[in-house]
Amino acid sequence: MPSAPHAPLDLNMIRKDIDATLDAFLDDVQHSALRPELAPLVEELRGFLRAGGKRIRPLLCVIGAHAADENGTATSEGVLRLAASLEILHAAVLIHDDIIDGSPTRRDRRTAHRGLAAHCQAGTPAAAAARFGSCAALLLGDLAAAWSERAVGTAHFTPQQLRDVVPLLDAVRSEVLSGQYLDLVATGHPSTDLDAALAITRCKTAHYTVERPLQIGAAFAEAGAEVLDACSAFGIPLGEAFQLRDDLLGVFGAPAETGKPALDDLREGKHTPLTALALQRAAPAQRETLHALLGKPDLDDSEATTVRDILTATGARETIEEMISDRRHQALAVLDEGPFHPAATTALRTLADAATRRAA
Amino acid sequence: MPSAPHAPLDLNMIRKDIDATLDAFLDDVQHSALRPELAPLVEELRGFLRAGGKRIRPLLCVIGAHAADENGTATSEGVLRLAASLEILHAAVLIHDDIIDGSPTRRDRRTAHRGLAAHCQAGTPAAAAARFGSCAALLLGDLAAAWSERAVGTAHFTPQQLRDVVPLLDAVRSEVLSGQYLDLVATGHPSTDLDAALAITRCKTAHYTVERPLQIGAAFAEAGAEVLDACSAFGIPLGEAFQLRDDLLGVFGAPAETGKPALDDLREGKHTPLTALALQRAAPAQRETLHALLGKPDLDDSEATTVRDILTATGARETIEEMISDRRHQALAVLDEGPFHPAATTALRTLADAATRRAA
Repeated sequence: MPSAPHAPLDLNMIRKDIDATLDAFLDDVQHSALRPELAPLVEELRGFLRAGGKRIRPLLCVIGAHAADENGTATSEGVLRLAASLEILHAAVLIHDDIIDGSPTRRDRRTAHRGLAAHCQAGTPAAAAARFGSCAALLLGDLAAAWSERAVGTAHFTPQQLRDVVPLLDAVRSEVLSGQYLDLVATGHPSTDLDAALAITRCKTAHYTVERPLQIGAAFAEAGAEVLDACSAFGIPLGEAFQLRDDLLGVFGAPAETGKPALDDLREGKHTPLTALALQRAAPAQRETLHALLGKPDLDDSEATTVRDILTATGARETIEEMISDRRHQALAVLDEGPFHPAATTALRTLADAATRRAA
Repeated sequence: MPSAPHAPLDLNMIRKDIDATLDAFLDDVQHSALRPELAPLVEELRGFLRAGGKRIRPLLCVIGAHAADENGTATSEGVLRLAASLEILHAAVLIHDDIIDGSPTRRDRRTAHRGLAAHCQAGTPAAAAARFGSCAALLLGDLAAAWSERAVGTAHFTPQQLRDVVPLLDAVRSEVLSGQYLDLVATGHPSTDLDAALAITRCKTAHYTVERPLQIGAAFAEAGAEVLDACSAFGIPLGEAFQLRDDLLGVFGAPAETGKPALDDLREGKHTPLTALALQRAAPAQRETLHALLGKPDLDDSEATTVRDILTATGARETIEEMISDRRHQALAVLDEGPFHPAATTALRTLADAATRRAA
């Protein structure tokens, strides 16, 4: 049912539509499977997608279409399929990310490589089963990326959409994978290099999670350059703020609220703007302590408290809060200029608050 | 320089054009890299692509365009870019395949995961460097798949090409990855299931290596259903024959000619039509020997000779030779019906001979 022009967007309803689109798409994938042996892969992906996720990227894609919409494209089936393709791409990225990190759980559920280990031939020893699971999840991630492309194809682009949307889809894939590689290189080696830390933030979150999904939706609704530029002007600072909040929550957040073990980020030695600033400003003894503790695989609670105290005492934590606040205001100022349709503007304002002020 | 209508295709010249297209494309990728830290990934892929490979898929794509060509599409830049995208996709598949198999070398060169291990931060212990290399190669494979899509985009499809070529690109990706998964599940567990072994052969080689590349080129040249069907009728049996020859060479071939250690296929316990037939026909004692030796990681030369003797004594080897010969004749019979332009037909006849009668 198309909304009246200025009615507020019902984000819960859009989320339900996205979920239904994902489920229907996976049914099609299941039907087209070449052999019955492939069923566990499709079911693992379905379980992964059903287990949750905020659907932030597909939501922003649909909102982007509403931001630009002149002709009802935003309420078409096509935009939902395009939005769903972003969630499937995200699943592909996370399935590979969990292999890289060797993570046992995600979204309160076994990760794909652990789930798939159960599908190797009976009687396989545990180590071989774990290896099978990693290899199967590697291929599932590859298949999910291919299926994401297939979902894009079901949106049936016009020549203009083809010209405008395809380069953005290309950009978003390169950006997230580049960000993953930069993260891989830097993790375990936190340094004073704030530029490198911000580059990871921009690739993995500002472009990938906010700017591009909005632009992809807007371009699908045949937005002009002005609207597409406004998507960047809003999306990049908001995305950076979102990731900086995530970095703070990873270190200072309550595990009961974030759903993430409190020590993981510190134990991995993630290179973030927070740790870069702290290392820049630390006195020699503090710097030595940070280098000893950031990335220590068996970091305990008391050591974590020591790290948190230094992050606070150096003022790094406060500076990150200021950076979040600055970026939030930058993003909201773009909305004030009114480049988008009112219903989309209202929805983006709500998301901007949720993303930068959240506790989880 | 466009060829005259019936001049024979110069496959060496086409191969050079494909290589030049690949190199120019990688230059563009390098220029568009978001950060200097990403340079080693692009260079690793360039080294991988320059190290060799028969370019069978891009060649078949160009030949497919010539098979259908009514209007000079086959000599356009676009078909070379589309052909190059298939080689980049293939690199993505092989980089991940080498992680799965833990292979140290490919094309007489360190595999990507070993090459990239050298790019982790200085002072990293060997085991951590190896792990870094695998993770980096996982991301490089993902990026190569994304870049393959980008190369497709540079072919600038017309609406008809979009409608006809994109579903074939989708099919080829799904087929090869499905084949990789079927192979993963079956490897180490050779059985009498000839159907499953033939399904792997079809996914990994018949569709992926022969049928689809031909069809993709033909569809780019706006071929009708008759030509596309003839691509399948020719490509599927030829692709099966090609893989069956590969299976025989993997067991009976001379390593000096194949470039592959003679015992690898036997030590991995690959499930192939050859082993399935042998297990079906083996006497109880022979079957017991095969189950003990196929997949034995430290199989020695004398044990390999025992296996080869059983594969020959059961008649499995001879039946596979007959299957190759049947399929070769089926494929050539399609060419005799003349569905393709003469220059393409001549080139396909040459390739069919090389693929099914080769010693390496």
